[in-house]
Amino acid sequence: MKLLHYGMSLLFLQLCILGSAECGRILVWHTEGSHWINLKTVLETLTDRGHEVTVLVQNASIFLAPSGPSRFTHEFFNVSISLEEVYEVMDKFLYFSLYELDRLSYLEINFKLYRLIQEDLRMQIQICNGLLRNEPLIEKLKGRRFDVLLADPIFACSELMAELLDVPLVYTLRFSIANTLERLCGQLPAPPSFVPAALGKFTDQMCFTDRLKNMLLYLSQDLMSMKLWEEYDKYYTEILGRPTTFCETVGKAEIWLIRTYWDFEYPRPFLPNFKFVGGLHCKPAKPLPEDMEELVLSSGDDGIVIFTLGSMIKNLTMEKTNIIAHALGQIPQKILWRYSGEKPETLAPNTILYDWIPQNDLLGHPKTKAFITHGGTNGIYEAIYHGVPMVGIPLFADQPDNMVHMKAKGAAVILDYNTMQSEDIVNGLKTVINDPSYKENAMRLSRIYHDRPMAPRDEAMFWIEFVMRNKGAKHLRVQAHNLTWYQYHCLDVFATLAAIVALIIFIFVKTCSFCIRKCFYRSKAKSKSD
Amino acid sequence: MKLLHYGMSLLFLQLCILGSAECGRILVWHTEGSHWINLKTVLETLTDRGHEVTVLVQNASIFLAPSGPSRFTHEFFNVSISLEEVYEVMDKFLYFSLYELDRLSYLEINFKLYRLIQEDLRMQIQICNGLLRNEPLIEKLKGRRFDVLLADPIFACSELMAELLDVPLVYTLRFSIANTLERLCGQLPAPPSFVPAALGKFTDQMCFTDRLKNMLLYLSQDLMSMKLWEEYDKYYTEILGRPTTFCETVGKAEIWLIRTYWDFEYPRPFLPNFKFVGGLHCKPAKPLPEDMEELVLSSGDDGIVIFTLGSMIKNLTMEKTNIIAHALGQIPQKILWRYSGEKPETLAPNTILYDWIPQNDLLGHPKTKAFITHGGTNGIYEAIYHGVPMVGIPLFADQPDNMVHMKAKGAAVILDYNTMQSEDIVNGLKTVINDPSYKENAMRLSRIYHDRPMAPRDEAMFWIEFVMRNKGAKHLRVQAHNLTWYQYHCLDVFATLAAIVALIIFIFVKTCSFCIRKCFYRSKAKSKSD
Repeated sequence: MKLLHYGMSLLFLQLCILGSAECGRILVWHTEGSHWINLKTVLETLTDRGHEVTVLVQNASIFLAPSGPSRFTHEFFNVSISLEEVYEVMDKFLYFSLYELDRLSYLEINFKLYRLIQEDLRMQIQICNGLLRNEPLIEKLKGRRFDVLLADPIFACSELMAELLDVPLVYTLRFSIANTLERLCGQLPAPPSFVPAALGKFTDQMCFTDRLKNMLLYLSQDLMSMKLWEEYDKYYTEILGRPTTFCETVGKAEIWLIRTYWDFEYPRPFLPNFKFVGGLHCKPAKPLPEDMEELVLSSGDDGIVIFTLGSMIKNLTMEKTNIIAHALGQIPQKILWRYSGEKPETLAPNTILYDWIPQNDLLGHPKTKAFITHGGTNGIYEAIYHGVPMVGIPLFADQPDNMVHMKAKGAAVILDYNTMQSEDIVNGLKTVINDPSYKENAMRLSRIYHDRPMAPRDEAMFWIEFVMRNKGAKHLRVQAHNLTWYQYHCLDVFATLAAIVALIIFIFVKTCSFCIRKCFYRSKAKSKSD
Repeated sequence: MKLLHYGMSLLFLQLCILGSAECGRILVWHTEGSHWINLKTVLETLTDRGHEVTVLVQNASIFLAPSGPSRFTHEFFNVSISLEEVYEVMDKFLYFSLYELDRLSYLEINFKLYRLIQEDLRMQIQICNGLLRNEPLIEKLKGRRFDVLLADPIFACSELMAELLDVPLVYTLRFSIANTLERLCGQLPAPPSFVPAALGKFTDQMCFTDRLKNMLLYLSQDLMSMKLWEEYDKYYTEILGRPTTFCETVGKAEIWLIRTYWDFEYPRPFLPNFKFVGGLHCKPAKPLPEDMEELVLSSGDDGIVIFTLGSMIKNLTMEKTNIIAHALGQIPQKILWRYSGEKPETLAPNTILYDWIPQNDLLGHPKTKAFITHGGTNGIYEAIYHGVPMVGIPLFADQPDNMVHMKAKGAAVILDYNTMQSEDIVNGLKTVINDPSYKENAMRLSRIYHDRPMAPRDEAMFWIEFVMRNKGAKHLRVQAHNLTWYQYHCLDVFATLAAIVALIIFIFVKTCSFCIRKCFYRSKAKSKSD
């Protein structure tokens, strides 16, 4: 399979360089955090293939601000919010996910989430203003005649820019809350009976109660989104100068590149313009730095364990760190722990702390036995790629739900960050390392990842370039976009059929009762006349 | 794009020959007619790639009986029906489609169709008996240890053989009536609001009446199928020796290779194990025989028109033939007409009759201006491949519906075989030849055909071999298979929610009325005491 993938990449590479007419100009919507990691891989490949990539960057960007030379053109724009405000909103989300989610009631969670998303939405509109009310920038971008606009719809208003510049829009997306964007605006079908709502922590095998909860989750998130989007509706109508809605504009995206695949996702219905390109940032492991390789080899048959809680968490409480360090000391493996906080007192000699680790190269090392992870999609995909079983300590956002996917597929155990004790960590690690089913399942997922018709990056490239070549992909767009919700669900048809049936029953009953009365009247009249 | 496709084919070819461990044994279910044309292409490619292909052939086969040496192993089996009986059932279908469909009422059509399918079903069970009650054959096939069973589900019982041999099953299918097999057994979602039922002649843009009719078509065909399948349910339970249903067994297919793509199909929701490999038999045009090339070139700027009504129709009435021949004489193009019946009196010098024509090579000739076709999927796909606009004279089966697809996409006009006059034919031809939109749309469909991530034959190969390599494709199978119909549609959840809401309203009303009565009683008592 690998031979095929490389062969195809080479062919693709040739195509654009040979046929330079196909090379074009790509505008990239501003983005942040782990969303950027995936997007960057796509953009680098597009640049490799001879395309010209222009990235919109706001002055209050956390991750994106380029330091030093870059392969992409950066188009900066000013926004009326500060970096501190961005951090503040992010911290609030973090605090909510880490400390409030478990202790609040269902209604409180929804209320809090509503307020948080509302705050984020207002911040997003301020960022949108920096672009869409910036006439000179719009004119400049119009003059560049882009072939496609690439955006993560989590960051709003790319749809408006696509309309203003008259450029086809391609989305790259992990998911939206309860998949409201994909379902309500993209028309992605999701029967709540076997398609769990994103973040709900259900699998595709749900008992009655799970299905009930899943349905309530869909309903509550849909209502919340529709209420929140009213603000966007006004903004979108104002910017475009004609009556429109947020959802209608989002629904115009030509292709949705979804950053998962069936190695991670539960099988579900989808649409021709939804392409599952999960793990497109994955790549083979490179050799480790010499000293690290030496350390890894010194682990002998026991092998090593990789441990990181992602780039967002740099410090844990000393209590938590000690619990973890104490647990790690009790397993025979060597542990490479990415942690830049204070050194825990209970740190055992088998555990080595690093400020940074070459995570992908370590996961691809034959000595690696397990991966302790916070459950970010990017990290999980690297583990899937290399077939490494996981111990998940999910923290916030999609991490708990991601880990449920891996647990359901038999490739991970999950620990509760707030309540876990050393014993739980030891047991979790021993389970995934010593029970061979975890390694087997991780390898099965790895085979699913690798054994597909087309490598995810090639597939993403194909569809972005398809849209560039053909100025869209209208032949993949379902007519559902032109139906109202009651038409979509045939409620008008059902109502008509019900009315017809009711009418037939009514006429039948009336006719019968008329006949009976007639007969009865006659027989009564007859008996009277007798 | 072509470079990429060839490159990929080559890479695929290498893969199996290099890695001979991947080459395996394929059992092919018996099949007939145009279904065989597509399947043969797949089987030839599988043989090219080093696989061993064994085709089951019944003694009462119309098309499949090999004359002379073949690249496939043929496993013959005897059935208790004669070739005449097979022809008889086929003729009845033909007569029904050609002459009865337009003059019968809706109820009569359904009744007649029910009887015809029932007759076919009983014939199919007789054919099944020839295989499944043939112990020595089953034992022989078991001994061959096949890696996959390839079948068109239109020909029943392949699912039983897959169970008996414990071999994964891959379907290759154009469609079943109203897509009942795909929807009811394969769990393919098909919202009746924008997914027209097969054979219904609706497009994906339906007004209220169309949607109502489409819904009725789904409902009536579903009821009909479920009633008819009861006979299969008994047979399947008997053969497997455990309680099962036809639909449950069909639902176990690993992959459904659907013989259309978005160049032909209206965009619609689908599932991860449904792969659209339409037009896999298409190939570039070869040079024409010398005399034919000379004739074609002699047409000058006017070009040529290709005319064939398929392999099933060899004779037309002389009246009809004269109408057609008279019309063909009125256009400036030269017409190559595949017709082996009696020469019509009105035949003009610009029209040449042939017993057989190299259809694909002619459609690929730059002089070809239009294609007069009965609307079989194979012919339509060759026209799409080469970008030739069509004049459809659909006769029976899926042909009228196929032509509606092409008309909806702006690449064809449709004539009514029963009522058409010379003038209609002339107008139809002039329209598709002189109105440039038809050629443009045909070319657009051709681009969609060619510009896809993977050539259809390669995609079919990939998934057949995937199933062989991995002994199935369980990771693509939706959990919907394990739900009842009311669970699937969440009717139990809705009923519970409705009950809860009703209970809350009831308690609320009761409480309110209790309070009101209490207050009222008090104030009354008070006023009395005053």
